[in-house]
Amino acid sequence: MLKFELLKTDDHARRGRLTLNHGVVETPVFMPVGTYGTVKGVLPSSLRTMGAQIILGNTFHLWLRPGVEVLRQFGGLHRFEGWSQPILTDSGGFQVWSLGETRKISEEGVKFASPVNGDKLFLTPEVSMQIQRVLDSDIVMQFDECTPYETQGHVTTEREARASMELSLRWARRCLDEHARLENPNALFGIVQGGMFETLREASVEALVALDLPGYAIGGVSVGEPKELMRSIVAHTPHRLPAHKPRYLMGVGTPEDLVEGVAAGVDMFDCVMPTRNARNGHLFTRFGDLKIRNARHKTDAGPLDPTCTCQTCRGAAPDGTGFSRAYLHHLDRCGEMLGPMLASIHNLHYYVNLMREVREALDAGAFGAFVQRFREDRARGV
Amino acid sequence: MLKFELLKTDDHARRGRLTLNHGVVETPVFMPVGTYGTVKGVLPSSLRTMGAQIILGNTFHLWLRPGVEVLRQFGGLHRFEGWSQPILTDSGGFQVWSLGETRKISEEGVKFASPVNGDKLFLTPEVSMQIQRVLDSDIVMQFDECTPYETQGHVTTEREARASMELSLRWARRCLDEHARLENPNALFGIVQGGMFETLREASVEALVALDLPGYAIGGVSVGEPKELMRSIVAHTPHRLPAHKPRYLMGVGTPEDLVEGVAAGVDMFDCVMPTRNARNGHLFTRFGDLKIRNARHKTDAGPLDPTCTCQTCRGAAPDGTGFSRAYLHHLDRCGEMLGPMLASIHNLHYYVNLMREVREALDAGAFGAFVQRFREDRARGV
Repeated sequence: MLKFELLKTDDHARRGRLTLNHGVVETPVFMPVGTYGTVKGVLPSSLRTMGAQIILGNTFHLWLRPGVEVLRQFGGLHRFEGWSQPILTDSGGFQVWSLGETRKISEEGVKFASPVNGDKLFLTPEVSMQIQRVLDSDIVMQFDECTPYETQGHVTTEREARASMELSLRWARRCLDEHARLENPNALFGIVQGGMFETLREASVEALVALDLPGYAIGGVSVGEPKELMRSIVAHTPHRLPAHKPRYLMGVGTPEDLVEGVAAGVDMFDCVMPTRNARNGHLFTRFGDLKIRNARHKTDAGPLDPTCTCQTCRGAAPDGTGFSRAYLHHLDRCGEMLGPMLASIHNLHYYVNLMREVREALDAGAFGAFVQRFREDRARGV
Repeated sequence: MLKFELLKTDDHARRGRLTLNHGVVETPVFMPVGTYGTVKGVLPSSLRTMGAQIILGNTFHLWLRPGVEVLRQFGGLHRFEGWSQPILTDSGGFQVWSLGETRKISEEGVKFASPVNGDKLFLTPEVSMQIQRVLDSDIVMQFDECTPYETQGHVTTEREARASMELSLRWARRCLDEHARLENPNALFGIVQGGMFETLREASVEALVALDLPGYAIGGVSVGEPKELMRSIVAHTPHRLPAHKPRYLMGVGTPEDLVEGVAAGVDMFDCVMPTRNARNGHLFTRFGDLKIRNARHKTDAGPLDPTCTCQTCRGAAPDGTGFSRAYLHHLDRCGEMLGPMLASIHNLHYYVNLMREVREALDAGAFGAFVQRFREDRARGV
C-alpha cells in the first residue's frame, strides 16, 4: 500500500505524509543508505534514536549477497537486517551502470559478471521485480538505465539520451506488468530519465504519469555533470510530476542540495554522502563542514556543533556535553573504529534532523525564513 | 579511595564489592579493555547497557596519543572518553615489554623509540605515576617489568626471573613514593611477578604485602608459557594474597580461565580476547565458541545463543529475537563494519554476564554447581 497526503505547500515546497506497509513517513525526508542490508557502521537502534523513518537497500548488492534464498527464508529484508520501519530498494539499474564497460545492455536487460565471484548474471526488469518482491521493500524502484552525463570524455548526445530514456520507459512498463503478476502489495515507483535535456525529461514525465504509478523518482542526476546542470534539472522536473504523489530525487546530495530540492518540490532524498564522508573524517554541521583530522581540533574540548542533539554531540558523555572534537580527532589519528561510528551517527543525524527542521518550518509556514537562516548558518563556518 | 568488602567466600572463591572514586564494582568482575581511550568498536552506551562496571585504559598508548596535555585539559580519561564509571589503567610495563628488542631496560626505567613517530622516550616508575595521575584512573597499576616466559627460544631461568622480579619490587617502592608525593586520591595496585617459579612468586607476594598496597595483581602470566604452567601459577598465587584486598589477574583469558581464576581466589580480570576475537569472527557463547565465517551459518535464522540477552542476540530486531547467525555471517562476508560491532557487543556481554552469573552463584552459595554446569554447557557445542 501507499497513501500520500499533501499537508501543506509553500510555492513548490511540500509538507506531506506517506503511509507504507511498514509505517508512516513524514516528508520531506532523508533516507539513510543501507546498501548491503546495513547502514555502514551504524546500529539499527542508533538509526531509530536519531529519528530515521525509512532506509534504503540495494537490490543489486543483496541479490549477490546474501542472495534471494536467504532473504526469502527471512520473509524479506526487514527481519534480516533488524529494521521494522519502511524500506525502499533501488532496482539495480544504477549499480549495473556503475560497472562500466564490463556490462552489456540489450532490450531484454543487462548481462554482467558478478564482481563477487565472476558468475555470469542477467538482470532484467522482471528479475529486479522478483528480487524486490522477496525483499518485501515498501517502495520498489523500477529497473531503469541510468543515462550517463559523459562516457570516457564523450558527453551524451540528445539522441543517445532519448534512446536511453525510451528504453527505461519500456522497462517501466515491463516492471509494472511483473509487479502486478507477482501481486506485490508494495508501491512501485517510476524513474524519470532524459539526461540533461528538459524536453526529454518532460517526455519521460508524461509517459510515466500515463502509467499511473504511486510515486515517481528523478534519476540520472549527480552522475558527473557540472553542478549548474544538476541544479537546472532539479529546478525543472519535480513540480511537473503529479502533485498528489510523492517525488524522490535519487542519490542527492549536499545539505544545500537537499534544501534546494525541497524548494523545487522534492519529498524524498537518499545519499551515501553522510556515511561515506564520515568514514573519511568529513563532518557536516549546521555551521558548515569540518575535517576532524585537522590539527586545530587536537585540543578542542567542544562538541562538533553545540546545537546538535545527536548521540555523538550530546548523548554519550557523563556530563551530557557529548564527545569532544579532541576525542574524535584522537580516534581518527589512532584509526579506531569508534571514530567512523561516531562520525556516521553525527552526519546521518544532521541530515535526518535537517529534514525535520524543514518539516517544522513548512508546518509553521516559515520555509522562506528557514532557507535564509540555513544559508547564513552554513556560511558562518565551524 | 578504595574500599573492599568481602561479602561471601566459597573455598578460595570470593564475592566482593569494591568502592572506588567513580563508583562501585561488584566482584568477581571482567573489565573490557579500552587501550586508546575506546573499547574497540563499542559505544560507551553499549558498555553501560551490557552492565560493564569498570574498563581499562593503557598508560603507554595514551601517553603517545593523545598525550598528557590533552588529557590534563579534560581532567582525566573519564570525560575524554565519555565513561563516568571506574577506570583502571595499566602502567605501561607490559606494553614496553611487548616492544621487544627496541627497548633498553635499566634500573632507572625503560628507554625506547615511540612506535608512532620515532621520538626517544623514557618511561620510569615516576613518569608512569605522573601520567596515571593525569588520567585520574580509579586504579593505578605500578610500573613493572613483565618477565617473559622465553626470549627467542631461551626459557627464562630462575636467576633471570628473580632479578626481574626484584627490579619490579624496587620499582613498586618508587611508584608508591611518587604516588604519595603526587597526593593521588586513587588506589595503587602492586603486581606480583616471579615468572613460573613458585618460590619467587611467594617472595614477590611477601615483599609487596609489606608495602600494604590497597590491591594486588598477578602479572607475567599468559605471556607465552604452556597452558599447564599458567594454570599452576593461577592456582598457586591468588589465595596467598591478603584476603581483605582485591586480587586482579592481568590479561587472562578464555571463559574457562576466568572461572578457574575465580575458583583460585581472583576478583578481577581483563583481556582483549572478547574484542579481538570478535573482529576475527570468533564468537563466545554459553554452549561453546563458533566461527561466524563458517558456511553452515549462511542460512541459520537463529541467534548466536538463544539464552543470550545482549543487544546483538536480543535487543535489536523488530520481533525481539535479535540478529541471526545468517545476518552476522552475511556482514562478515561483505566486510561490513556492523559485523565486528555486533560481534564485539556479543562477546563482551558474554564475558561481563559470565561474571554476573558467577556472582549470583556465589551469592546463592552454589558456585560448585555453577562450575559443573558451566563446563557441561561449554562442552555441549553450539
